[in-house]
Amino acid sequence: MRRILLAATGLAALFAVFAPRALPDGEPVPPAAAAEPPARPRMSPQTEECITCHQSVTPGIVADWLASRHARTTPETALRAEPLARRISVAAADALPEPLRKVAVGCFECHGQAPESHPDTVEHADFKIHPVVTPNDCKTCHPVEVEQFAGSKMAHAHDNLAKNPLFHSLSETLTAGAEVKGGALHVLPPADATRLDTCYGCHGTAVTVSGKRTVSTDLGDFELPVLTGWPNQGVGRINPDGSRGSCAACHTRHEFSLEVARKPFTCGQCHLEPDTPAFEVWQESKHGNLVLSQQQGYTWDAVPWTVGTDFRAPTCAACHASLLVSPGGETIAERTHDYGSRLWVRLFGLPYAHPQPKSGATHEIRNADGQPLPTTFAGAPATSFLISEKEAKRRRAGMTKICAACHGSSVPLAHFAKLDGTIAETNRMTLAATQLVEQAWARGLADRSNPFDEPIERKWMRQWLFYANSVRYGSAMGGPDYATFRNGWFGLTENLREMEEWLALRRKPADGK
Amino acid sequence: MRRILLAATGLAALFAVFAPRALPDGEPVPPAAAAEPPARPRMSPQTEECITCHQSVTPGIVADWLASRHARTTPETALRAEPLARRISVAAADALPEPLRKVAVGCFECHGQAPESHPDTVEHADFKIHPVVTPNDCKTCHPVEVEQFAGSKMAHAHDNLAKNPLFHSLSETLTAGAEVKGGALHVLPPADATRLDTCYGCHGTAVTVSGKRTVSTDLGDFELPVLTGWPNQGVGRINPDGSRGSCAACHTRHEFSLEVARKPFTCGQCHLEPDTPAFEVWQESKHGNLVLSQQQGYTWDAVPWTVGTDFRAPTCAACHASLLVSPGGETIAERTHDYGSRLWVRLFGLPYAHPQPKSGATHEIRNADGQPLPTTFAGAPATSFLISEKEAKRRRAGMTKICAACHGSSVPLAHFAKLDGTIAETNRMTLAATQLVEQAWARGLADRSNPFDEPIERKWMRQWLFYANSVRYGSAMGGPDYATFRNGWFGLTENLREMEEWLALRRKPADGK
Amino acid sequence: MRRILLAATGLAALFAVFAPRALPDGEPVPPAAAAEPPARPRMSPQTEECITCHQSVTPGIVADWLASRHARTTPETALRAEPLARRISVAAADALPEPLRKVAVGCFECHGQAPESHPDTVEHADFKIHPVVTPNDCKTCHPVEVEQFAGSKMAHAHDNLAKNPLFHSLSETLTAGAEVKGGALHVLPPADATRLDTCYGCHGTAVTVSGKRTVSTDLGDFELPVLTGWPNQGVGRINPDGSRGSCAACHTRHEFSLEVARKPFTCGQCHLEPDTPAFEVWQESKHGNLVLSQQQGYTWDAVPWTVGTDFRAPTCAACHASLLVSPGGETIAERTHDYGSRLWVRLFGLPYAHPQPKSGATHEIRNADGQPLPTTFAGAPATSFLISEKEAKRRRAGMTKICAACHGSSVPLAHFAKLDGTIAETNRMTLAATQLVEQAWARGLADRSNPFDEPIERKWMRQWLFYANSVRYGSAMGGPDYATFRNGWFGLTENLREMEEWLALRRKPADGK
Repeated sequence: MRRILLAATGLAALFAVFAPRALPDGEPVPPAAAAEPPARPRMSPQTEECITCHQSVTPGIVADWLASRHARTTPETALRAEPLARRISVAAADALPEPLRKVAVGCFECHGQAPESHPDTVEHADFKIHPVVTPNDCKTCHPVEVEQFAGSKMAHAHDNLAKNPLFHSLSETLTAGAEVKGGALHVLPPADATRLDTCYGCHGTAVTVSGKRTVSTDLGDFELPVLTGWPNQGVGRINPDGSRGSCAACHTRHEFSLEVARKPFTCGQCHLEPDTPAFEVWQESKHGNLVLSQQQGYTWDAVPWTVGTDFRAPTCAACHASLLVSPGGETIAERTHDYGSRLWVRLFGLPYAHPQPKSGATHEIRNADGQPLPTTFAGAPATSFLISEKEAKRRRAGMTKICAACHGSSVPLAHFAKLDGTIAETNRMTLAATQLVEQAWARGLADRSNPFDEPIERKWMRQWLFYANSVRYGSAMGGPDYATFRNGWFGLTENLREMEEWLALRRKPADGK
Repeated sequence: MRRILLAATGLAALFAVFAPRALPDGEPVPPAAAAEPPARPRMSPQTEECITCHQSVTPGIVADWLASRHARTTPETALRAEPLARRISVAAADALPEPLRKVAVGCFECHGQAPESHPDTVEHADFKIHPVVTPNDCKTCHPVEVEQFAGSKMAHAHDNLAKNPLFHSLSETLTAGAEVKGGALHVLPPADATRLDTCYGCHGTAVTVSGKRTVSTDLGDFELPVLTGWPNQGVGRINPDGSRGSCAACHTRHEFSLEVARKPFTCGQCHLEPDTPAFEVWQESKHGNLVLSQQQGYTWDAVPWTVGTDFRAPTCAACHASLLVSPGGETIAERTHDYGSRLWVRLFGLPYAHPQPKSGATHEIRNADGQPLPTTFAGAPATSFLISEKEAKRRRAGMTKICAACHGSSVPLAHFAKLDGTIAETNRMTLAATQLVEQAWARGLADRSNPFDEPIERKWMRQWLFYANSVRYGSAMGGPDYATFRNGWFGLTENLREMEEWLALRRKPADGK
Repeated sequence: MRRILLAATGLAALFAVFAPRALPDGEPVPPAAAAEPPARPRMSPQTEECITCHQSVTPGIVADWLASRHARTTPETALRAEPLARRISVAAADALPEPLRKVAVGCFECHGQAPESHPDTVEHADFKIHPVVTPNDCKTCHPVEVEQFAGSKMAHAHDNLAKNPLFHSLSETLTAGAEVKGGALHVLPPADATRLDTCYGCHGTAVTVSGKRTVSTDLGDFELPVLTGWPNQGVGRINPDGSRGSCAACHTRHEFSLEVARKPFTCGQCHLEPDTPAFEVWQESKHGNLVLSQQQGYTWDAVPWTVGTDFRAPTCAACHASLLVSPGGETIAERTHDYGSRLWVRLFGLPYAHPQPKSGATHEIRNADGQPLPTTFAGAPATSFLISEKEAKRRRAGMTKICAACHGSSVPLAHFAKLDGTIAETNRMTLAATQLVEQAWARGLADRSNPFDEPIERKWMRQWLFYANSVRYGSAMGGPDYATFRNGWFGLTENLREMEEWLALRRKPADGK
């Protein structure tokens, strides 16, 4: 039946329907043809078959892919770009499987790779296809990026929640069900749906194959895998093939647009208030104002990304990930997909801000109290798991170089000194809250066996998870509102006094004082 | 005096000042002229007179209208479009009043229609004009849309608040004034200004003619109606002519831009956190990220709206209203102006999520306890007023077809199964809060005669109105932050423990336990 | 060494790298050359030298400046524009220092002006340069704007916080540090970093020269001033030369883009919820919806700014600052840089909404109770410091004229009458909260010596600073969500009942009642 459809519609008709956009530059184009869009590369015969049906079955993603660079270049062509302009990191064409080299990077090239390594592989039409494309597939052409990402906290985002007993308890407590029985409130474990909706929505689920099902369609019967934890695009997703991460979390399928990945709305899928108000603080900042006001004049998909001409003010990607050069061609920052690797301090308090961890697998950290936390409840950092002062200094110099593309040296110097002060001060505010909640524990007013479930404990959590974090993000990026009123110092100071009042209200005469 | 002005400025000069933009395609244009914008149709003589003065009196709206499709086409021309591309739903030209057929849809065509049916009609210059254009006016050319809308919850948004004794009490309580007398707090009815600012700002006011006033201007004296509840663009506005709704709520006057109506900022006028965080959750979602990143490349005003080529990721309109087709021309979803009609479940808890009501006039619902609510306080749905399981299944299949334009069947299947779980779980969390507030009522700690005014009752309201709703919207559209921290599960679990603590603090020794 | 660099790169190469954008119109261009971008004016030799190094040292800001109007015109050319189209307010070219007249407004023209008056001036290469450009520098070409701004509340934003003992106490209390000693919470003064991050981030710091430092670079050693309170772009910044304000707060350096200043993201750097939700309310409003949906079709940098053709719906700038004309060329509103001068009422409650102050230096106000507040705690306005009813009426008529560009007279008439009602009603809600907190003070449950630090006092503050303000902004601009649920009436009514409950819980048997 597929053959009939192919004859009926034809790929020529398809291309007529999906009007191509001009290919962004970056790859060499024969001079004579420079004025017109380059010819599309040929698709593999397998991909042609995929598209023959899917143009009518799932037309949206076919249109997406046809607009992608993957549809308009081949790995071999991509490798001919100048090193700094290259969007592919495999060393040379002969390091690629032969069938991939001269064809567009189509459906089959990704969904049909190494079928035996993917437990979700099914017989689909005449092919072995896996729905869940993983970093192992992307690695064929993009090994450097996948390798960098694999070492990041993002790649371990699932495990850092699920395998850290304390954080696992935290997430299970925040999302727990409840019922009232005999007049009393009883806590229940979170529903599976809740886990998918909440923490693991961003951290990533563990996707496993729990069975198969058959779907009957106009085109015949198809076997499909039944997947747990699916759909999910969490950044630390555990895939059926055992790999970690979803490149689509940021490089949204199936256009895989660099523009999208570099725009802050992508990071804003997860890095939101009240716990990590990175998107909102950036939006409030002068940088955010400039980008949001003038984004239509930026060249969003240039590689490398030139400060001042391609873009005027940074998005998240500029400071944390992208390959940046000056208009004169000097490299300002190398590309990285280990998103914490340009940072020296981790603003996100657990419960205190601390030097960045050495390894992305933070669930392996143990502090001096034996807890799986980068700092103790009293604030002592788990030094052996965290980067050295020397490394911190090196990273700070690297970030300063990015600032210096637009700012004289006095600006980052004073800015980061201020940030140091804010980290110390917000850590002190966290310590004060910790000492108050410990009074509640010591006096039997709350039960420390689960430190995250009672109202006074939630106030303690709010102190570090919402208020101290907001102040630090506000300080780091310049968002006075978030540092002041919106979950900022207003909260930090109010919360301590409310904790004090809570304790005072429960003081028995025998407590003295 | 108007004649003098006309002579002085002239309409030719006007058109020179207001530079026209090219008319979007969709209507047949003679092939030879295809490259240039079509000639403007002629205005009616009445509209010409309106514009002669109003180009200087209210130039902004004249400019708006001149940029509109209404200014560049006539009903007769609009009817010549292919059925799927048609933006007018009257059956044929001869169903239209003769004077409207061959002129632009100008000031007089709307503000001068059926003057006797509009109590706000005044003598204005030489014409009978009514300021409040209503669905009855729009219906002349757009009968199908007005009819669909008339059955929707939106059309009844005013009555569903004002005629439902419980919701009326809720809205009057939330917005009540107060004063302290003799040391005690006394509650006062809401001010009229408050009602206009708050609930009825979105739900729509009842606009009535309370008198006339005369305005003296350079162009002479003019009589104007004095209107109560005006200005207002609420979606369920009761108009002076008795009709319900304001088409301008979404199709903003006077450009009536389809682009504006389809962009999520329109829906975001009302569907905002903390009660209905639809806009914010969408913005956080992958869909929102894609649209916000790439909106400049979309064709926002195409009719029909083609998935994959006109737009790549959905806004509110795509899933809830627009006529969608595939690039191959197959209809994916019919247009509807009954905005709940593609939905099977109503996420918005009153106090529990429940099947969509059959009728938009939800104030007519009575549950098993006799309350005007779609569910009882214990969670039992008022089944006879709600759609059947069969109808729910049909609607779910229709929405799945929209998803399937871009997603394989496993995605909507698993996604909606997850949503089912989340609805059950958040309803359970609402039940627990209800059982706790009922303890407060039973123990005389709060007075259930008004269930919305006391602090412990507000905590109960927060449970369903803010937290459970946020979780459901977060689940339905993929917004983990809203499902977790931002009014989500963090709130659901914290709130229950705070309610429990509130009760415990007020337990008298005699209460036992 | 600089000379060598100059030879090596050359300014011709520079201009090749930084591709120019077409200059927006507004200045006369010789007819023959109208189709091509005008030739760049020459730079001063000093600016040429600056750029020779800085194109590699800080390439981002060089690119920014090259894209600016400052780089493409000279003061003399700018003066040749028609009066309404003029972007420079010096009376005539001969009022300008001769060296500035015929060159681009480059690095040296601003950073090298009147070096002796700038305490931050250093020897830099062969020049005397000051990093902190101030309104005194901008005033050379833009005296009218600087003069207007100098009288505004914004120009006094630092002093209005720092020199008002009550507000100073408020800001120091909100941002105070804390530690627990001997089990008790002790309050500490705010850290310097905190002051920079929070209130003074928007209000502006006092920038002083505390010393010098030497930086060794590849280009040699450079002396730089060490500045306190730097970097800062707060709108009321006290500069080393004693002037007030930072023009860069809105006219972001170094492109000084009118587009950016007119877009609401600029105002949204500071005017955010929960205290001043101007940006968010506007975003929710119909006006915000229209601008956000159609901003790409606006002409953002036209002078004057024409209602209906350059823009269709207002941003902050349109109503509060810009020179507006009708398509016919009639002036609708004069330009002002005294941003409160079009307003009659100050919505921002301190603690009550009140008529606008006469002077921007609000710290000089004393109310009938001797407090430095525009109203007493009981609500009596400090009339002699506030504008008269006659002046209020004049301003209201001026704003009505702006509304009337798009709305018939009934709309602003009813809209502002509603706003009057809302001001009265929210002031009453503030009074009720004040009377409750005064009960706490009277009964010794709280200490009024610092009225901003205890939990019950924070609830009082929330009433006027968050909830009443949100309702008023929501009313003024049409944001029902902010007037209702999002810090609006839900908060106003809930908060009073919680204050009442707080008092009741602490009622001793002896208290009676």
